[in-house]
Amino acid sequence: MIYLDNAATTKPFIEAARAAEKYNTDLYFNPSALYRNGLEIKEMLSGARKCILTQFSSDYDLVFTSGGTEADNTAIFSFAKRGNVVTTEGEHSAVYEAFKELKNRGVDVRFVPLEKNGGVNEDALLSSIDEKTSFVSVVHVNNETGAINDIEKIAALAKAKNPSLIFHSDGVQAYCKLKYKLSGKVDLYSVSAHKINALKGTGALIKKRNLHLSPLLYGGGQENGLRSGTENVGGIAAFATSAAIHYKNHSENIEKFGKLKDIVLNNIDTSIFKIISDENCAPHIISLSAVGLKGEVLQHSLEDYDIIVGTGSACSSRHRHSRILGAAGYNSEVLDGAIRISFGVNNTEEEVYYAVDKLNTSAQKLKGIMKK
Amino acid sequence: MIYLDNAATTKPFIEAARAAEKYNTDLYFNPSALYRNGLEIKEMLSGARKCILTQFSSDYDLVFTSGGTEADNTAIFSFAKRGNVVTTEGEHSAVYEAFKELKNRGVDVRFVPLEKNGGVNEDALLSSIDEKTSFVSVVHVNNETGAINDIEKIAALAKAKNPSLIFHSDGVQAYCKLKYKLSGKVDLYSVSAHKINALKGTGALIKKRNLHLSPLLYGGGQENGLRSGTENVGGIAAFATSAAIHYKNHSENIEKFGKLKDIVLNNIDTSIFKIISDENCAPHIISLSAVGLKGEVLQHSLEDYDIIVGTGSACSSRHRHSRILGAAGYNSEVLDGAIRISFGVNNTEEEVYYAVDKLNTSAQKLKGIMKK
Repeated sequence: MIYLDNAATTKPFIEAARAAEKYNTDLYFNPSALYRNGLEIKEMLSGARKCILTQFSSDYDLVFTSGGTEADNTAIFSFAKRGNVVTTEGEHSAVYEAFKELKNRGVDVRFVPLEKNGGVNEDALLSSIDEKTSFVSVVHVNNETGAINDIEKIAALAKAKNPSLIFHSDGVQAYCKLKYKLSGKVDLYSVSAHKINALKGTGALIKKRNLHLSPLLYGGGQENGLRSGTENVGGIAAFATSAAIHYKNHSENIEKFGKLKDIVLNNIDTSIFKIISDENCAPHIISLSAVGLKGEVLQHSLEDYDIIVGTGSACSSRHRHSRILGAAGYNSEVLDGAIRISFGVNNTEEEVYYAVDKLNTSAQKLKGIMKK
Repeated sequence: MIYLDNAATTKPFIEAARAAEKYNTDLYFNPSALYRNGLEIKEMLSGARKCILTQFSSDYDLVFTSGGTEADNTAIFSFAKRGNVVTTEGEHSAVYEAFKELKNRGVDVRFVPLEKNGGVNEDALLSSIDEKTSFVSVVHVNNETGAINDIEKIAALAKAKNPSLIFHSDGVQAYCKLKYKLSGKVDLYSVSAHKINALKGTGALIKKRNLHLSPLLYGGGQENGLRSGTENVGGIAAFATSAAIHYKNHSENIEKFGKLKDIVLNNIDTSIFKIISDENCAPHIISLSAVGLKGEVLQHSLEDYDIIVGTGSACSSRHRHSRILGAAGYNSEVLDGAIRISFGVNNTEEEVYYAVDKLNTSAQKLKGIMKK
């Protein structure tokens, strides 16, 4: 199988699955227990924390969560309470729907429009921020187009306008996929394990150490009282294992994604496909549209060749059209034909050449059928 | 090792770990994806749902969560909003701390006192309920003493006083450990996977089908919009696998727990140990106190024989004394000496005979040292 839907989820590294298995079988003890075996699990969790924070300065620590959605929701419901709150039309639904819920609760919520590549319009964002803005959330890498928002710069400009606001970014599609180091302007950053070849059910909210977070879950006081509930020990072990592997091969992986993107761009039939992702988008996610065709039909044609691609976000697969591409200004013909190719670290150049070839021929065939 | 801290967490069944591994390696697809592989994962989730609900009538369905704590918090923050809300002094901290948070937010919260075995005082509970009570939460089996609250009866009496209230029960220590069938008076019921030999990081809120739940997490709309976030597929597969094994051996397991409890009660040195759990407690959890000794010291002495017991709840191990035993009216000497023995389905009679012997001799030795 050629799996090109890595923005939806990734195949776990075998090392990550093994790490989880160890804690899911022999080392099953409760990390809150006071006997030796419990304390050993607690130590592993500390090590995992450090490992996941490799890319971050010592200004940051983290709270383990059940995934990116919980990380986003924790940040938002903890801080987006007073005055007005600002986000973009390009957010993953875990941020977007949480802001919609805030709006339902009567909060002044401001959704900022997008550029054609799915990135936020920075001028519009800054115009939305005023002295009453308490919270701003801007996705780091758009999950449908790969558009990179320069969150460091945006956070600095936002805080220049209002130094008291809290700045959050959903980093789920950026973490371990881009080179960056947050300088401290970004207060909160959400990451997810299953997007970096670890397991579903684990994520983290990375936060400035001095930031006073309100928990979403109350109980046994795990995670320094910020996230109660017995830790997902196996999931966390897998998360740290995968992060370490990613960090080790970070530069090579990024270079490879660039090569794979070039193969798509240089070989795709541009008489059929409109490329939505531009050169300012991260190379591991490519949004394109077979204008005049249905993306889902094309997706199923590719399945016959054991090639898996996405249609927009898996998390919004219930909706006919991509909310994000709509917000980026595309018409319904483009939206109908949208598909997403997203690379993982195990994809090869051969796979991508083959997939693009089948994408072209399948689309040509479907076009031919439609003309008849 | 003789592991007698199964109320803290259980060793996963090898079948459960294998089920998780399958979905953590080959079958890693996103259940929201629209291609065949994604749809297959979605089907597995439906099957798991049915399996976990085996013990429940068709009036109930469930929402998968990251564990018992999230299930409790979802129930509480969804419904405990208006008028006054009632719970017991014997709740697990996932319920107790959530109610304390409600109190901080200005809600009229009523904590009901306990009997000596840790069960709720039913008369006091019913007296606390009035026409303004919107929500009642009563733990099914107390996690420190094993006290069984007759939630069916209590829910019926509570609703006779106020038919509009919502009744929740934390069933984490009861699920798969007791024989019961909820008749429909209980609206919401929390369960946890890692207490029944599956994995940490998965649980469920079982709910009456017609009940309108407010989500705690917003996003991709998973779980019918009631709990967003990519499903913990491996954890859910393991949960269902373990539930099926428990159901298959349900009667034998319960009978065995009774025998193991009898071994403790018939062989423990009652000149040293005070037994807190009585005949109205579930047989898989026994609370006892080596009065005049420190429970933690005794726990560490047993570790030298590779015997693991608990001291109260793992989730409240940060506190010196058990909140629940304190609420049940015991003095500080009893609280100091408290330990908890909790059985899992794999414990044998030989193990328990050996553990009780070492418990007696260790306690006798510690007493002797203290007298010198």
